[in-house]
Amino acid sequence: MDDTANILNTGLRGVTIASSRISDVDGTAGKLIYRGYLVKDLAENASFEEVVYLLLYEKLPDQIELENFKERLAGKRSLPADIVTALGVLSKAASPMDILQAAVSMLAAYDFEIRDRSREAALRMAMRLTAKFATIVAAWDRIRNGEKPLDPKPELGHAANFLYMLSGTVPDPEVARFFDVGLVLHAEHSFNASTFAAREVASTRAHIYAAIGAAVGSLSGELHGGANVRVMEMLKEIDSPDAIDAYVDNILSTGGKIFGLGHAVYKIDDPRALILAPMSRIMGERTGNTKWYQISKILEEKGKAAFKRQKGTDIFVNIDFYSASLYHCMGIPLDLFTPVFAISRVAGWTAHVIEEQFAGAAPKPVLYRPESEYVGDYCGPEECPFIPINKR
Amino acid sequence: MDDTANILNTGLRGVTIASSRISDVDGTAGKLIYRGYLVKDLAENASFEEVVYLLLYEKLPDQIELENFKERLAGKRSLPADIVTALGVLSKAASPMDILQAAVSMLAAYDFEIRDRSREAALRMAMRLTAKFATIVAAWDRIRNGEKPLDPKPELGHAANFLYMLSGTVPDPEVARFFDVGLVLHAEHSFNASTFAAREVASTRAHIYAAIGAAVGSLSGELHGGANVRVMEMLKEIDSPDAIDAYVDNILSTGGKIFGLGHAVYKIDDPRALILAPMSRIMGERTGNTKWYQISKILEEKGKAAFKRQKGTDIFVNIDFYSASLYHCMGIPLDLFTPVFAISRVAGWTAHVIEEQFAGAAPKPVLYRPESEYVGDYCGPEECPFIPINKR
Repeated sequence: MDDTANILNTGLRGVTIASSRISDVDGTAGKLIYRGYLVKDLAENASFEEVVYLLLYEKLPDQIELENFKERLAGKRSLPADIVTALGVLSKAASPMDILQAAVSMLAAYDFEIRDRSREAALRMAMRLTAKFATIVAAWDRIRNGEKPLDPKPELGHAANFLYMLSGTVPDPEVARFFDVGLVLHAEHSFNASTFAAREVASTRAHIYAAIGAAVGSLSGELHGGANVRVMEMLKEIDSPDAIDAYVDNILSTGGKIFGLGHAVYKIDDPRALILAPMSRIMGERTGNTKWYQISKILEEKGKAAFKRQKGTDIFVNIDFYSASLYHCMGIPLDLFTPVFAISRVAGWTAHVIEEQFAGAAPKPVLYRPESEYVGDYCGPEECPFIPINKR
Repeated sequence: MDDTANILNTGLRGVTIASSRISDVDGTAGKLIYRGYLVKDLAENASFEEVVYLLLYEKLPDQIELENFKERLAGKRSLPADIVTALGVLSKAASPMDILQAAVSMLAAYDFEIRDRSREAALRMAMRLTAKFATIVAAWDRIRNGEKPLDPKPELGHAANFLYMLSGTVPDPEVARFFDVGLVLHAEHSFNASTFAAREVASTRAHIYAAIGAAVGSLSGELHGGANVRVMEMLKEIDSPDAIDAYVDNILSTGGKIFGLGHAVYKIDDPRALILAPMSRIMGERTGNTKWYQISKILEEKGKAAFKRQKGTDIFVNIDFYSASLYHCMGIPLDLFTPVFAISRVAGWTAHVIEEQFAGAAPKPVLYRPESEYVGDYCGPEECPFIPINKR
């Protein structure tokens, strides 16, 4: 892009606004890199805890560093009792994303380092926030179902412990590993809307909890983290492989969209979707419920072909397309799909907040303060004369 | 600005990213316009309620419209009992801005129109949020002091009712009017950081509560809404007109800044500061405590002169410079200065969320999704080879 004329009202699409050392999305090659490492390699070989360490400390941990970090994370999973009590008072109908956003703001007062503005304290607060995110989501699901939240099990990894806190049952290792891979894949994605919201808030020198609360709000939107819910709703609406043709025809002829196809950045299949798809298939086979994967797979093919016929251009599968059926087969309630995304992305958000506040790649941290073009035409190009109320 | 090269890592300073019909800041002429009207005219002639109506409905109300709107706003001030109970459970040491951010997220579940995605419902939710913001702040101040929150008085205007709910005493009409003018002056200021955060979250189609929660987080930063607190802390540190010369010399020689001087947009005295200054003087006289206004006034002159001598350029007074002493003389606790800013700015935020989600001036609402330049150099220009943990 050569000039700013094209920026107006485009949501900053395609506009490079900052340097970052955290991740690289190569939308043409379909490559996603966290701190130098291909997400594909990380998904195959590393745990979520290892990836959190990488995102925060800019290197993969050695064995001892990882064990220490896992121990610290596991030790910080519990929520302050006050917060559990406060959540228990609220309407059971509250959206889990609203509860997560509220809980993050409440947590600030319980972090003993909240007034410490050093980079080191921020790294520790990031670790505590990441540890607690999973607990908030699991606790809320139990509270709203009239059950007591479960204490975390420190001997379990982050993924397995979340599934345990949610269901009360320690998960099978393969299921836990699939969930762990899901966490690795969702952990970071450069300046997406929620990360940008977190950085924007952090740029005012607000504390990390305030910034992460903003990110949760942003992720809740259906154009962002809410999209995995829309994918599952779509799969349920289709409900049978036989109904796919009619669904695709109807959607495209009415100008609708197939959720999970298309992405702001990728011009090829999302590398994360390619990893999620086989896990979705295996989870379907494990649970004897292969329908959702089947529908997804056929819908991907038919949806892509129909889009190509209609628009003449290709459309690609994104991360939400196969995470929906995967999470569904794991027994995760529909309205926790986006919170589960948040449980992972908090790692990337916190790394970005720290980069924003402690210079990182940028020469100097400055407040995000764009300008707008005033197009109010209330009294022509001039300001309006004020008319007293009794003469209006 | 001619090319995007200058955008990188500048916080989008000076970059026009969107059209808006809501307000116009002419930083050179020192003019601020809300929906066509000069803020100076509004501050002199209109109440906060009138300005909220103007921001939401794009016209000044006639007498009947205003009375109806005031009645509706006053009727929505109460908080759900659950939320008061939940706040009562939390640490009394919690920052009022964190509490405000948490309470906004909690409120979502109690708005019966939360799933209605129409513009009309959004306008009503904006009204309810604006009504409740003042109540949250006053309720929290009483809760943390071990007192029961007071029921709002529907017969009082928004400003007077807030001061009543905070102190338990119906304020003198002149004090209420000064506070009301403060609310009018803080209500809207185009794409400042908190408003931009609200729009950014709204662009994902998140609901208005999620977006306003993000804005509260952004306002809490000391480079933004937190600045009025820093001004008062500075005045207290100076403490006497005699100490101003030494303070100014010391600050400028150590590369520090005088809080309340300088602004991202204004290249002349902030028009809002010019209205706040005489109110600060009168409030000081009313309360027999003229010291803070005096220090402010002399500090403004000496600070400006010293800056000019040192840097060769002018610096100007901003809105936070005189709001600090004004609020202090009104008996508002220091850590409520920024929440008081929020009580007002929620009007502008909600107008922006609605404009963002319902097209407004922009041709089509799109997600804010800028790009970043990856400058990670972890393994040179190539991605890093993954090394198994036992070989690191």
